[in-house]
Amino acid sequence: MTDNQKQLESQAKVNEKRGSLLLAWQVRDRHCLVIGSGDVALSRIHHLIIAQAKITVITGTSKIHPEITKLADEGAIFKIITRDYQVEDLEMYKPPKHEGVDHLKLDSLGDDDYQKIDDYIKNHRFEVVCCCIDDHDLSTKVYYQCKLVGINANIADKPHLCDFYFGSMINKDNLQIMISTNGKSPRLLKIIKDIINKEIKDINLNKAIENLNLIRYQLRALKLPETDVNTIELRMNWIKTLTDFFSIKQWSELDITDENVNKVIDTYPQFPPTDYSEFKQLLI
Amino acid sequence: MTDNQKQLESQAKVNEKRGSLLLAWQVRDRHCLVIGSGDVALSRIHHLIIAQAKITVITGTSKIHPEITKLADEGAIFKIITRDYQVEDLEMYKPPKHEGVDHLKLDSLGDDDYQKIDDYIKNHRFEVVCCCIDDHDLSTKVYYQCKLVGINANIADKPHLCDFYFGSMINKDNLQIMISTNGKSPRLLKIIKDIINKEIKDINLNKAIENLNLIRYQLRALKLPETDVNTIELRMNWIKTLTDFFSIKQWSELDITDENVNKVIDTYPQFPPTDYSEFKQLLI
Repeated sequence: MTDNQKQLESQAKVNEKRGSLLLAWQVRDRHCLVIGSGDVALSRIHHLIIAQAKITVITGTSKIHPEITKLADEGAIFKIITRDYQVEDLEMYKPPKHEGVDHLKLDSLGDDDYQKIDDYIKNHRFEVVCCCIDDHDLSTKVYYQCKLVGINANIADKPHLCDFYFGSMINKDNLQIMISTNGKSPRLLKIIKDIINKEIKDINLNKAIENLNLIRYQLRALKLPETDVNTIELRMNWIKTLTDFFSIKQWSELDITDENVNKVIDTYPQFPPTDYSEFKQLLI
Repeated sequence: MTDNQKQLESQAKVNEKRGSLLLAWQVRDRHCLVIGSGDVALSRIHHLIIAQAKITVITGTSKIHPEITKLADEGAIFKIITRDYQVEDLEMYKPPKHEGVDHLKLDSLGDDDYQKIDDYIKNHRFEVVCCCIDDHDLSTKVYYQCKLVGINANIADKPHLCDFYFGSMINKDNLQIMISTNGKSPRLLKIIKDIINKEIKDINLNKAIENLNLIRYQLRALKLPETDVNTIELRMNWIKTLTDFFSIKQWSELDITDENVNKVIDTYPQFPPTDYSEFKQLLI
């Protein structure tokens, strides 16, 4: 195969499943900036609240979404500024020059420097800027200003001016699911979201996991305490087989306690009943 | 309610559903750096290939995963460097000073500057660094070096040194799904992934969407061409009702063509049969 053919074949493989890089961004306790105060701004703020960011909102001078005002009143927003955006805002938390990190030397960083950089990341820069305003020229400018300063940016309604997109999200208990069709099919997105929601609706996922964790914990404590690879595998296999007996919904509806868990564990190395009603009987 | 109570209540609400900021990162044609050449590095490379990044790999001098070598041979990796990481690597694509963007003025950017910044973003900096090496001290150093230079970083096995995590991914046709439990329950992650995979297994999602898109397109062309809000709503409602007649699997198994689509459209403003076999008959 020639290099050219190889390139073409490789490209074809890539095209088969191209998409975005789906990532779980860690913005907890980091400054994030939302510019705007409409529906889109509110949606961004909701995402950032779940991620526990320190949110600054620059609302502009027109109407502010009442829900944004409410969130600010409740203390969910770190700082709200009710005037129009100005370029200095991107570095509003930047420290005076001598307290910053600009003077640190890349090739000789030590523990003291690490602390300074941690402080800088947490307190003195924006991790992410979400611009949600209607002004086309200004929002374009905000993007390029962000890139020049080195901030990740999302400009609403301008996909080519976005370092990242917000996908469609499902948040339930400890579970987060993001669905993306890379803009190719909002319809598919909706259908898949409905399917997943239907599957996990009315299920207390945390309860299911608590039940399974308690069994795993006690299996380890009472039957398989060793930490060698073989024992770990025995534990994992037993738990895996047991888990597959029932659906996640069925697991969520059990009440496994410190008292009844041993009735399950005592069946090891055999298994408790695979019939759900018999299994429930065992727990009584 | 006092401010203190408000804060507490607000905090309680946040705690209920805390998580990460799940984002679809756009690294297409942007430089991304992977440091390392083991299983984790390979996994990062796979993610980056799907996202069509320009991937540079610094392998180090120990054993290189054969799959990484293969991908490099196939042209899927932009540049592979078979020596140990050195700090200069983080800025290996940086242009000479006078060609860069450092001299641009934040408060007076114009169209020419936008082009320069686009070129800079695409060709002269790393969007993301994934460090996948076993050397604890070095990987810590890489993180702080990245932050000082302003690059987003993920340090394998060091969650506190990660701007972002990779979640569990499902890629199928045009669909991408990311599942995260924020490290709280790998077991739940696996269960949910299995549920979703089972739901979309053996379904040609693209075909389902093509079928629905063709119907929507022809409905618009033949019956509801106007662009006012009322017409758009009529179109959307009719398509939505029709979509819900059948499951996504059933839609994927139909073959709606330019020839038979009109038989569906002609039923407007009524609907085609809600019975699947009758509907299939209609298409013949």
